[in-house]
Order: sequence, then structure tokens, then C-alpha cells
Amino acid sequence: MNDLLQKPRKVYVSRKIEFNAAHRLFNPHVTDEENFQIYGKCSNKYGHGHNYLLEITLCGIVNRDSGFLFDLKELKSILEKEIIARFDHRHLNHDVAELVDCVPTTEVLAVLIWEILEQRLNNINNREFSLHEVKLYETGKNAVRYLGE
Amino acid sequence: MNDLLQKPRKVYVSRKIEFNAAHRLFNPHVTDEENFQIYGKCSNKYGHGHNYLLEITLCGIVNRDSGFLFDLKELKSILEKEIIARFDHRHLNHDVAELVDCVPTTEVLAVLIWEILEQRLNNINNREFSLHEVKLYETGKNAVRYLGE
Amino acid sequence: MNDLLQKPRKVYVSRKIEFNAAHRLFNPHVTDEENFQIYGKCSNKYGHGHNYLLEITLCGIVNRDSGFLFDLKELKSILEKEIIARFDHRHLNHDVAELVDCVPTTEVLAVLIWEILEQRLNNINNREFSLHEVKLYETGKNAVRYLGE
Amino acid sequence: MNDLLQKPRKVYVSRKIEFNAAHRLFNPHVTDEENFQIYGKCSNKYGHGHNYLLEITLCGIVNRDSGFLFDLKELKSILEKEIIARFDHRHLNHDVAELVDCVPTTEVLAVLIWEILEQRLNNINNREFSLHEVKLYETGKNAVRYLGE
Amino acid sequence: MNDLLQKPRKVYVSRKIEFNAAHRLFNPHVTDEENFQIYGKCSNKYGHGHNYLLEITLCGIVNRDSGFLFDLKELKSILEKEIIARFDHRHLNHDVAELVDCVPTTEVLAVLIWEILEQRLNNINNREFSLHEVKLYETGKNAVRYLGE
Amino acid sequence: MNDLLQKPRKVYVSRKIEFNAAHRLFNPHVTDEENFQIYGKCSNKYGHGHNYLLEITLCGIVNRDSGFLFDLKELKSILEKEIIARFDHRHLNHDVAELVDCVPTTEVLAVLIWEILEQRLNNINNREFSLHEVKLYETGKNAVRYLGE
Repeated sequence: MNDLLQKPRKVYVSRKIEFNAAHRLFNPHVTDEENFQIYGKCSNKYGHGHNYLLEITLCGIVNRDSGFLFDLKELKSILEKEIIARFDHRHLNHDVAELVDCVPTTEVLAVLIWEILEQRLNNINNREFSLHEVKLYETGKNAVRYLGE
Repeated sequence: MNDLLQKPRKVYVSRKIEFNAAHRLFNPHVTDEENFQIYGKCSNKYGHGHNYLLEITLCGIVNRDSGFLFDLKELKSILEKEIIARFDHRHLNHDVAELVDCVPTTEVLAVLIWEILEQRLNNINNREFSLHEVKLYETGKNAVRYLGE
Repeated sequence: MNDLLQKPRKVYVSRKIEFNAAHRLFNPHVTDEENFQIYGKCSNKYGHGHNYLLEITLCGIVNRDSGFLFDLKELKSILEKEIIARFDHRHLNHDVAELVDCVPTTEVLAVLIWEILEQRLNNINNREFSLHEVKLYETGKNAVRYLGE
Repeated sequence: MNDLLQKPRKVYVSRKIEFNAAHRLFNPHVTDEENFQIYGKCSNKYGHGHNYLLEITLCGIVNRDSGFLFDLKELKSILEKEIIARFDHRHLNHDVAELVDCVPTTEVLAVLIWEILEQRLNNINNREFSLHEVKLYETGKNAVRYLGE
Repeated sequence: MNDLLQKPRKVYVSRKIEFNAAHRLFNPHVTDEENFQIYGKCSNKYGHGHNYLLEITLCGIVNRDSGFLFDLKELKSILEKEIIARFDHRHLNHDVAELVDCVPTTEVLAVLIWEILEQRLNNINNREFSLHEVKLYETGKNAVRYLGE
Repeated sequence: MNDLLQKPRKVYVSRKIEFNAAHRLFNPHVTDEENFQIYGKCSNKYGHGHNYLLEITLCGIVNRDSGFLFDLKELKSILEKEIIARFDHRHLNHDVAELVDCVPTTEVLAVLIWEILEQRLNNINNREFSLHEVKLYETGKNAVRYLGE
């Protein structure tokens, strides 16, 4: 089976999910004026929100038996428990314990998602892949990529 | 000029804009439990948010001199003053006067946007067009259309 | 609550879902040559497939208490039972009882989905809305709309 | 075959194509200053351009034998001869005979495409469908629909 | 001509094409139960299908005379002969000789497309570019990249 | 604040903008026939046009105080002055000084945009980021990436 895989093949497999959340860019250690100077209307008091689009990329050698790098059904289940349950329909400043004392910029959120998934994926036995990239789109125009460096 | 327009031509012209806002689906006249039963996680306390995509459609006879139904530069300016300034980077439940004592569902928001634009466009003299449709996408999957009926 | 809804407001609410299916355009009552003449490579023996995108639109008066036309959580549940369970990851010619003795063109499939949903939605008590449109995209370029006429 | 089609079914079938063209919004019967006042930077001397996206919708009763409203292979061939050959990789002001003495706004272009296709489709014998709508997107944000009225 | 190209410039040029195919994830060397455990509903007997979107990326130094890395008209012609003719409107398990005794996962298909194109592009004389990446989207949510490693 | 940023975090931040321009692929040093042989209908006399989509990616360490790599409001302002003002609603062959004696292919345009932005961003004091990539989409199907190599 799968003669194309006799030679090891390194692939990158990506999966997109979406979550809808509110956030406010605000640093409590500086004045409101300074916050407005840095964050503009993103510092408005009650926050605003986004349809965040998250793209997770795993990297590794394709399994010769299954033809998969990693079972996307299992990845989907992990993303629902670790990402959707934590962020979807939440206000990032109020509802997410890991973001207390953080300004929830897209950069910070991408780093946090990396940390959560890296730790969770490390618990899978005999894994032959690694987390390669977290890409988070705040809107259709803006995105941040973090590769764990 | 524009011989194709000797005969009156009725066209529909659409323009899309985007705004990012937070909202919470919550009716203060019923209990938290009832709110959760009706609105689910959309009733979470601090709200969540969306990249709202709004598509405005005007309808009327093309002007034979300009070849336009309506100057899109002027429409853009109206949408920035009436829609972006009012809704963008806001929390709909806290920051929008017109939505006090409303549950800011996509349906309600589409009706409100119709009312705002219908009134504003009525003030334009000699207008040869009318507001035809407000279409509001809450996500890439859900949308509401309102035609003023 | 919801003063904007004191006047009845007729809205159109749309929801998109996706299913992945195989099909073959083939009429067993005519020859292979005639099939190829009518359907071209769409008549290839084992079939081909699509990521079908289905957009359902309901129409009616917004409920003044909830601000909803119809609870999208309930609509999602209906679509999963009636559409996803029936069509997703299926070969339309072999696996769908309703399509036996049909050529599963996008036109026929849109009509079938209308019949299924119209019957299912009729069973909801006190419903204040009706099925308005079934729109089925076979690819990003081709789509069929059916409004029950 | 196709029992679902025993009852006549009226469907709307849409097909999208793209063409890339340059244009300039400029009326030679008024001054440059007046052109700039009406058309702004769209009146720049050498023109600018767009990836125009055109969506053609036909309407009629599904054919009970084929399950098609109209063969999309034939529609594609018509669109290539009538639309792509005429507009693609052209400068609309210089290269399109039908647009001489026109300001090639999206409105005017949509009306012209209707006229071309309406005449061409009328030449098909025994046709059971009609041209329903021409929708022309100039960008992802702006579009014009014309229904022949 | 092209003074910007006096210094050698390494660019990555991408081209997207689409093909519609059916497939079934099924390993004939294990039982149906094991197949269902590994592949879930993707192992359904007659298969399902997708609108596959393929993005090919070439890499190399821009030609100083033409301003091109590689003529996209020629690339399009190669992709039609090697990819569209082989995969479009096919059932991958039945109709593609190279996939006999393979489970046609997106990973395996991306590797196969790399092998086909790498061999074909090697036959072009004096080529100054190389195949950089094959990216294959099975749906809008899932994609696999292969870079030949 | 921002404990996640105690460890330096290298991120890639992308921003998309669009401009609409005309161009003609034509080399004045060779004959019209040779131009047609190399560039096909892209060499038509008056040019054609595109909705160009430009994606700029910056790379660097997230600022621990702001949670930003770089203020996107400032990036937007730079892109409007350097890119939109120069290319939007222009004919690239006639209106852009930097492209005189160039064939304005997507490759050449991507390199030019890199040169413009690299020079402009170098003038920002204390900058902790660098320009990582210019990606320019000519259509939804074709794109060129340049990374300054």
C-alpha cells in the first residue's frame, strides 16, 4: 500500500477553525489618554469584536499505513476542547484566565494559542509530527503568524 | 453620450462595508436562565463580537449624463458618517443609543440600519433612487436581509 | 423591549452549510454515447464530486420578544439531521434513496432539498416563517436557486 | 426518470466568469475639471483597471429528460464568444465598438452585457428559459445588477 | 529594460487551478471495521467528492528580458495536460493508474502531484526555476503542502 | 503586563490592501509580433487592468509594552502614501515614474514595491522589525512573492 510513501515524505497539514470573541486593547498601567494614543478606537471601554479565523499547521512525515500525517478528526476534537471552549463567544479581557494582565492583541493571542496547543500535542504518545505554525486572522485584512521562535 | 441609456434602465447598485463590534444577546426582562435557554452562549455576560459585513443596495434609473445611479463616493461618505461612526469598534449593547432596550440580534440591527439610511437618503434633493435592501452578514455563514417591508 | 419591532418587520434569514458528495450525471434509459453527448465528462462511470455549499433562506416577521425570525440553533439541528446525514460523504447516485431514477444535477438536487425542508418545517407548530429559497452552489462558479415555484 | 420533475419546477441557474479590462470614466462633452468633479481619480487620463466578475442568471423550467435548465457547457461557449472575446484584456474606452460615446461605468457595462446576451440567447431555437439577471462586480465591494427593466 | 532586474531577484510565482473528483479513503488490506475506525464516513463504499483547489509555486530568478519567472500560459498548458486531464471529473480510486494500491488522502495526492510535475518540469530545457511547493486544498478548511522533502 | 512576552516572541504580521490599475506587457525594444509571442493578449495596445491585492508581511519581536509588532495604523498610513497614492487608479506604463523602461509584470511590480517599502521602513527610528515579504495577487489565481533575496 501507498508506494509513494516508501520514501519518507515531510508534509504540512493545515486546518482552519473560527471563533467569535470580543476584546479591548487597553493597558491598565497607563492612562486612558495614553491607551487612546497607542490603541485608538480599539481602546473603547466596553470593547468590540471579531470573527477570528485560526489556521493551525502541523508538520511531519506521512504515516505509510494510513496516508495521514495526523487524524484531522482528532485534531478537530482537540481544537474544540482547547480553543473553541476557551475563546468562542467570550470577551477575551474578562473571560479568559490566561489573558489576565495581558493586552489581547492578535500577536499575544497567537502566542497564547501556540502555548496551549504545543502543550496539549506534546501529551500525545508516539507522535510523529510537531506543531509548525499558528496563523490568526483578526479580519480578512490582518493576520499574525507565530512559529514558536 | 450613453446611447444605451436613451431607454430608462433600472439597476440595483450594491456597496459593501465592514465594521467590527461586540454584542450580547440578552433580554433584561427575563431571567438569566431564560436568556441562556433562548440565546445560549450568545448571552454570555460580557458579550462576544463579529466582523459585520454590510451590503447596501440602491435601486433606480441610471442617470443618462453620468452613467451612474448614484455617486459611490457620496454613498461611501454617508456610510462612514452614519454606520462606521456609530457601530465600528463599539459594544452594541452599551455604546449605541438606538439599541438601548433592544436585543441586538442581526435581524434588529438590519432593521435599525435600514431606518437610519432611509431617513438620511430621503434628505438628498432630486434623488432618483431609493434604498432597496440592507443585507447584514454576522459571519460568513449567517446573514439577514431587510427590504423595508 | 425591541421598540424597532413594534411595527411588523419582514426579514430574510440565510444560513450556509457545506456537504461533500460524489455524483454522476447519467441517464440509464439512453446509451452511453448519448449520455456523453449530454453530460460530457460528468457522465464518467464512477462519478466525480464536489464540496456543495447550500444556502437556506427563511422569510417572515421578526419575533418581537426574541428579536429572532427563527432560532438558528434549531435550524442548524434540522439541517444536520435532514441534509448532512442524508448527503454528506455520500455518492448521490448510489446512497440517496430519493434520487434513485433521477439524474442528480444541481437543479434536481436543489428541488429535492426544497421538498425535504418544506415538509420538515411544516411540522413546526405556530411557525411564523416560511421557507423562501434553496440556493445550491456546485462549485464557486455554478449555482441553482429554487423558490418552490 | 426524474420524478421530482413531473411537476414543472422553475429554477434560477447562475454562472460566473471573469475578465480583466481597463477603463476610464470620462465624458468628452464636458471639461477635464468637470470630469474630475464627477469621476474623481476614475477620470485619470490613461485609465485604470479591474478584474471584473460577471454572474449571469438564467430562469425557466427544468427539462425533465436532462435534469438541466440549460447546458452550462453551451452557456460557457456563448460567454467566451460574446463576453471574453469582446472585453477580456481590452481597454473598454478604446477597444469596444459598442462603448464608443459611452462612459463605461459598471451600470452601463451591465446594461450592454444584457443587450448582447439577450440578443444572442433569443437565437436559440425552442428555448425554454430566459435571461433573468446580469450581475457585474467591479471589485469585491461594488456590484451592479440589471434585470432588463 | 527592466533596470530593477539588473540585480538577480528570486521570486515565488503561484498559480491556482481547480479539479472536481471523487475519492474513498479505504485500505483493502484491513477490515471494513478498521477502515471505519481510521477513516470514518470517508470510507463509505461508493466514495464522496471534493472541489480540489491546487496551488503550484515555482521559484527562481526573474528573467531580465521578459520580466517573467516562467510563462504562465505555458504553465497553464502543462497543468491542463498533467493534472486536469488526469484527475478532473474522475474517481481517484478507480480512474487514476498512479493511485492503484494507495489510499488517496490529500497528503498522498499532494505527493503524487509533486512527482508528476517535478518530472514534467525537469524536461524543460534551460529552465531557470524549480518547483517549490504543491499546496492542495481538499475543502476551504483543510490543506496539505509538500515541498519535495 | 503581557507575561507571555517575557520570553522574546518572533511573529510575522500581515496586512492586505487593494489597488486598481491598468498595465500593458510590452517591450519597446522588440517588435509587436515578438511582444505578442511572449505576452499574448497582455500586449494589447491600450492595456487592460486588475484589482491588485497586496499583502505586506513584517517580521520581528513583539513589543512587550504594547503587545504589537508594529502599529498597524502607522503601517496603513505608510501604505496609503507609498503604494495607494502611487499605483491606485493609474496606468502602470504611463503614470509610474519608477516603471519607465520596465515591463510591468507582477514579478517586476512586486520587486518595485519591496524596494519602495524597504527604503521607507528603514527611515523609522528604533525599529525592531524588518520587511519580510511582499505578496502581490494579480488575480485570484496568480500571485508573486518576493522576500528581498
